Amino acid sequence: MATQNPETTIEMQNLVITPEDLLKHWQGHRSVTRKTIEAFPEKELFNYSIGGMRPFAQLVMEMFGMAVPGMQGIVSRKWDKFADTTDLHTKQDLLTRWDETTTAINEYWTQIPEGRFQENDVAFGQYEGQIYTTLFYFIDNEIHHRGQGYVYLRSLGIEPPAFWDRG
Amino acid sequence: MATQNPETTIEMQNLVITPEDLLKHWQGHRSVTRKTIEAFPEKELFNYSIGGMRPFAQLVMEMFGMAVPGMQGIVSRKWDKFADTTDLHTKQDLLTRWDETTTAINEYWTQIPEGRFQENDVAFGQYEGQIYTTLFYFIDNEIHHRGQGYVYLRSLGIEPPAFWDRG
Repeated sequence: MATQNPETTIEMQNLVITPEDLLKHWQGHRSVTRKTIEAFPEKELFNYSIGGMRPFAQLVMEMFGMAVPGMQGIVSRKWDKFADTTDLHTKQDLLTRWDETTTAINEYWTQIPEGRFQENDVAFGQYEGQIYTTLFYFIDNEIHHRGQGYVYLRSLGIEPPAFWDRG
Repeated sequence: MATQNPETTIEMQNLVITPEDLLKHWQGHRSVTRKTIEAFPEKELFNYSIGGMRPFAQLVMEMFGMAVPGMQGIVSRKWDKFADTTDLHTKQDLLTRWDETTTAINEYWTQIPEGRFQENDVAFGQYEGQIYTTLFYFIDNEIHHRGQGYVYLRSLGIEPPAFWDRG
């Protein structure tokens, strides 16, 4: 066994999650969100809301807004604006964009520079923090809004997908 | 500079999040959830629901069910049952238990054995996976149900706490 820097050894013993597993975690959640889009009737996906909140399609568009431009910023350290979603008008439009986004995230992920997760940056020129916090925000924001979509579905009498089934 | 094992060096360069920062991340989310409990009127916290779902107090009790026994299992590798919550009847009961849980999580966190995050285990004798997936489940489940609480609040005409303000 090669000699190790003691600090590095401590770090390895405390490894929480690898980059590969974080991608798997996010895509697992994205699989649940895709099933949530599918569960909505076409009309209610775009029009139904509770308490003046945005319809689920608009919450999904917010996810699109951040996902691919976010990955581009993480990879390139250059931040563009949120993704345009004005061309999305039907459930099929959302599902098609969803699958394109899945592929794009997987491709960008392999290009994340070494050490990038711990770097400080200002995401979209507005949100300062280490890059792992930016990624966690994308994931957490999706979970948060999908949970709201579950309430919309339940109030429509529709069973949402199982939260724990990430396949 | 000391000689490093090449594989260890690669791992360090790809560090996503440290254990200390994962604790901070969770407690930051827990701070938002505490504010969500506070935002509910006493009665609606325990009685109000949409679409046949559980009232927010019951969702919070589910969080209690997992949090401290979960940390005990992570630290000791012995899994007990979910926490008893039958003594929680008022908003103040929930907030007091919330703060006790905050302290308990912080204390247990310092006792997590080295290498534990990557170990396989069967949480609560039922949920198999690496320990980081167990912790991520606790956090994600809280975000998911808190998002549902936000819909309850909005439908009651009450502004929920800011999702991004983790202080």
